[in-house]
Amino acid sequence: MQAILIYDTTLRDGTQGENITFTADEKLKIAMRLDEMGIHYIEGGWPGSNPRDIRFFDLAKRERFKTARITAFGSTRKPNIDAADDPNLKAILKSDTPAAAIFGKSWALHVQSIMDNTLEENLAMIADSVAFLKSQGREVIYDAEHFFDGFKDSPDYALETLAAAIRADANFVVLCDTNGGTLPQEIESIVHSVSDDLKRRFGDSGKLKLGIHTHNDCGMAAANTIAAVNCGAVMVHGTINGYGERCGNADLTTIIPILSAKMNRPCIPKEKLAGLKSLSRYVSETANIVPLNSRPFVGRSAFAHKGGIHVSAIMKESRAYEHMNPELVGNQRRVLMSDLAGRSNVEYKAREMGVDLGANGSDSKAIVAAIKQMEDEGYQFDVADGSFQIMLEKFTDQFKPLFDLESFRVTIEKDKDLPCSAHATIKISVGDSHEITAAEGLGPVSALDNALRKALGNFYPDLDTMKLVDFKVRVVDGSEGTEAKVRVLVESRDQDQIWSTIGVSEDIIEASWQALADSFQFKLAKEAQQHSKPSPNGKGNTEDLKQEWSVSYGA
Amino acid sequence: MQAILIYDTTLRDGTQGENITFTADEKLKIAMRLDEMGIHYIEGGWPGSNPRDIRFFDLAKRERFKTARITAFGSTRKPNIDAADDPNLKAILKSDTPAAAIFGKSWALHVQSIMDNTLEENLAMIADSVAFLKSQGREVIYDAEHFFDGFKDSPDYALETLAAAIRADANFVVLCDTNGGTLPQEIESIVHSVSDDLKRRFGDSGKLKLGIHTHNDCGMAAANTIAAVNCGAVMVHGTINGYGERCGNADLTTIIPILSAKMNRPCIPKEKLAGLKSLSRYVSETANIVPLNSRPFVGRSAFAHKGGIHVSAIMKESRAYEHMNPELVGNQRRVLMSDLAGRSNVEYKAREMGVDLGANGSDSKAIVAAIKQMEDEGYQFDVADGSFQIMLEKFTDQFKPLFDLESFRVTIEKDKDLPCSAHATIKISVGDSHEITAAEGLGPVSALDNALRKALGNFYPDLDTMKLVDFKVRVVDGSEGTEAKVRVLVESRDQDQIWSTIGVSEDIIEASWQALADSFQFKLAKEAQQHSKPSPNGKGNTEDLKQEWSVSYGA
Repeated sequence: MQAILIYDTTLRDGTQGENITFTADEKLKIAMRLDEMGIHYIEGGWPGSNPRDIRFFDLAKRERFKTARITAFGSTRKPNIDAADDPNLKAILKSDTPAAAIFGKSWALHVQSIMDNTLEENLAMIADSVAFLKSQGREVIYDAEHFFDGFKDSPDYALETLAAAIRADANFVVLCDTNGGTLPQEIESIVHSVSDDLKRRFGDSGKLKLGIHTHNDCGMAAANTIAAVNCGAVMVHGTINGYGERCGNADLTTIIPILSAKMNRPCIPKEKLAGLKSLSRYVSETANIVPLNSRPFVGRSAFAHKGGIHVSAIMKESRAYEHMNPELVGNQRRVLMSDLAGRSNVEYKAREMGVDLGANGSDSKAIVAAIKQMEDEGYQFDVADGSFQIMLEKFTDQFKPLFDLESFRVTIEKDKDLPCSAHATIKISVGDSHEITAAEGLGPVSALDNALRKALGNFYPDLDTMKLVDFKVRVVDGSEGTEAKVRVLVESRDQDQIWSTIGVSEDIIEASWQALADSFQFKLAKEAQQHSKPSPNGKGNTEDLKQEWSVSYGA
Repeated sequence: MQAILIYDTTLRDGTQGENITFTADEKLKIAMRLDEMGIHYIEGGWPGSNPRDIRFFDLAKRERFKTARITAFGSTRKPNIDAADDPNLKAILKSDTPAAAIFGKSWALHVQSIMDNTLEENLAMIADSVAFLKSQGREVIYDAEHFFDGFKDSPDYALETLAAAIRADANFVVLCDTNGGTLPQEIESIVHSVSDDLKRRFGDSGKLKLGIHTHNDCGMAAANTIAAVNCGAVMVHGTINGYGERCGNADLTTIIPILSAKMNRPCIPKEKLAGLKSLSRYVSETANIVPLNSRPFVGRSAFAHKGGIHVSAIMKESRAYEHMNPELVGNQRRVLMSDLAGRSNVEYKAREMGVDLGANGSDSKAIVAAIKQMEDEGYQFDVADGSFQIMLEKFTDQFKPLFDLESFRVTIEKDKDLPCSAHATIKISVGDSHEITAAEGLGPVSALDNALRKALGNFYPDLDTMKLVDFKVRVVDGSEGTEAKVRVLVESRDQDQIWSTIGVSEDIIEASWQALADSFQFKLAKEAQQHSKPSPNGKGNTEDLKQEWSVSYGA
């Protein structure tokens, strides 16, 4: 069966999405992950439009990609100039990628009313640009922007634009539903017409050049993609998690498993499918976007069952309420609000971290129940690996605290319209030594972080390498005003690892403290395992503290 | 053209979604909104399964619904008992609704392996249950659970189950893709087969009884629904925002505009369509679920354009990059990261609130620019009407503060493993009087709320009626650790209104204070307009404060 080529544009069209931005380095990391997944084409950016994308292509040149062809994006040449002189096309060539994607106009409305161009010059722009890039040794993907709207307006002209690209030897012509307003029944009929037309003009080879690029404005991006594949499209454009302008692009995390597992169309290597959930999560974390729980196949809730009839049926026969095996896409079944839930999950996670749930005579069943209870209270250990490991160690008496809190006090003051000021004092002990320090900060958590860091710095000089990179607060149960529970997630990073910790409390400072303390414990345990020993330096610096305190408070 | 009946199951299947729960009162309010929208059927719950749903039907009985038929849900009778004796069916009757929906098994796997039943008895259960409810004067909707999986397994048996329901005079038979694993091409071919079979058995009337109920496990719920409608289904099941188990149900906020505006199929009255975004938001707010920005048609980003080519084209010709007029569904175009953005939004909102942007010689252009700047910093006024009104009043010199903050101090203390304790002291002035008080709380914000309430209580006794009902914290820019900006949204309520206020700062306490202060100002302004006058009582109670302080701090 004809293989389907997967063309990822997360790094270009995906970044048109609201709140989606990547640095050049982040783009490179995502590209490596996409390559790892067996994606065929990675559209890295539009080098003619911004310096960040130029930098990405510079970085990408130095890497070796196993499967993926890195692709630079741009527009056809400007009207009435030579293709070789067009700055956009020159920027594409400078990116030095094996493949280039250029978009051109299919819709007379755009050519005439928006661009003030002639229909003839538009065809020449398409043909010249494709031919020029081909002459420079590039594989060329031609994106027919607004193809479906153009076709509905004037089928003949829309088809001429495709023919111009193919005559100039484009490797693929991609039908774009740029505005996302086309329904599957229209996609089917139009792709059939295109396919017939290309076959008439170019024989069977014409048909084998069709790609599809859809947007989700009608909630139909994935369905439209599948409809086009059913009508002969062989290249599929999309983004991870469907990120993209407005309602997003076609979501590759939906389309790949449908093609591969449901329709048995060869696309990425089948064994790679199990990395899909992890890829989805990696991209959402990099974009700092809360992952969508209900996302098909890869969402946290995608295989979650809520009590009652479903759960008992599933225990007998998983296909009774599951359309596929979640492990195929690296996801897992979850059973919600039920005693049946969690146990296997917890055991699975503990195994992963190398923590023996039965160690030191612990009762693994009781541990599971306790953790389950904590999850019911708002802890979410699947996104807080650091805290989860500490928790398991505590339950099995394997936890060795590298510092203990004696006490802290955080004070926030505000005068009239001046901004708040925050100060923290903290007293910790490391072994038999005590340390008391104080610090300021932008807000109470920042002050506490600074004070703890200062206190620990006397014992553990390596802390400099550690940085808090994200701090997320969510109300877990929002129905009781300020007394609702708050969940704090802290993400920390050092030179070689990222870890997440969590705290839950009715008090945001308590929750933040739990997450902060776990993060430092995790880092110190890591360091302890590697090399450093604490260098106790427990001189009680209460004097320093008093000075700082009195200055700050003017008391 | 055949009208499509919209059957909403937000209140039943929607609540199977992770984190989706509604109280009986909330269900009633949502039902009233659905009725207002012109929805034909509202499935209110499963009275046989829980007391909350029984209570909902009790409440619903007392209301008059304009269009909607309230529907009670349940299963077919248990095996080998009389329908009249079945507790589930009895609970449905007791709900006293005009319509009843019952689900039965279409798939031999479920009948035999899960339920340990015979295929014959299953058919009898369907027929008996439908006939019994009909005999009691109910309109009956029969949900053929797992119909598509059952049909793929054994088409003849699946068709027999439908025939059994229709022979017993079911008003509708609904084909359910319970596991959500069916693709549009399969839906089309199976619905065609069903349609042909029913026509053969029952003539044209059989065809007119078909409904469709899909789930989104393959991201195809909406596409499958539209495919079924194209093949003759006349009733569409779905939920607002697609809430539902796992990946959710078919999203009515997608399907209704497609049917109505794109396919011109009569469904809800056309003029109601403009209420769709507001309905979507109402349901997400009631469920306390962050609305999905990228949701087709109704999402905040659904008509948002990100700079450059698209924006300038849109200014010339909106259909160049917009598949429909956003106002049709009550949404609006947004232009991101551009000076062109916002002005009309701000002016529109000000008009709505009756604030004259040009009052007292204000420069409306400068106000728009300032507010736009604040929105760029993380304020989001479309969800904080209270703060927005105060802001506009401040900019136009129309704001009359009903109290002023002199200063506050919040202290949080923690000792070893004991929980944090929080105390706040606050000094405010009302006119020429001052008041200083202190209070404790669960966390710093709660302490501050309590202290402010206590301080204001001496001047404004009516504050008792006001309650903070929700407190949401979000990091607006999560890339700089604890120094990222935090947005706090506070929702407050009194006996006759709900209002939302907002604060944004790098310091969570500062942000919380802004939102809290606005909330109290809003309430007091409301009261002042109505009747009460401040009753100054400015005795400086510093003594009280000192006592409380020394007790709390042991200093």
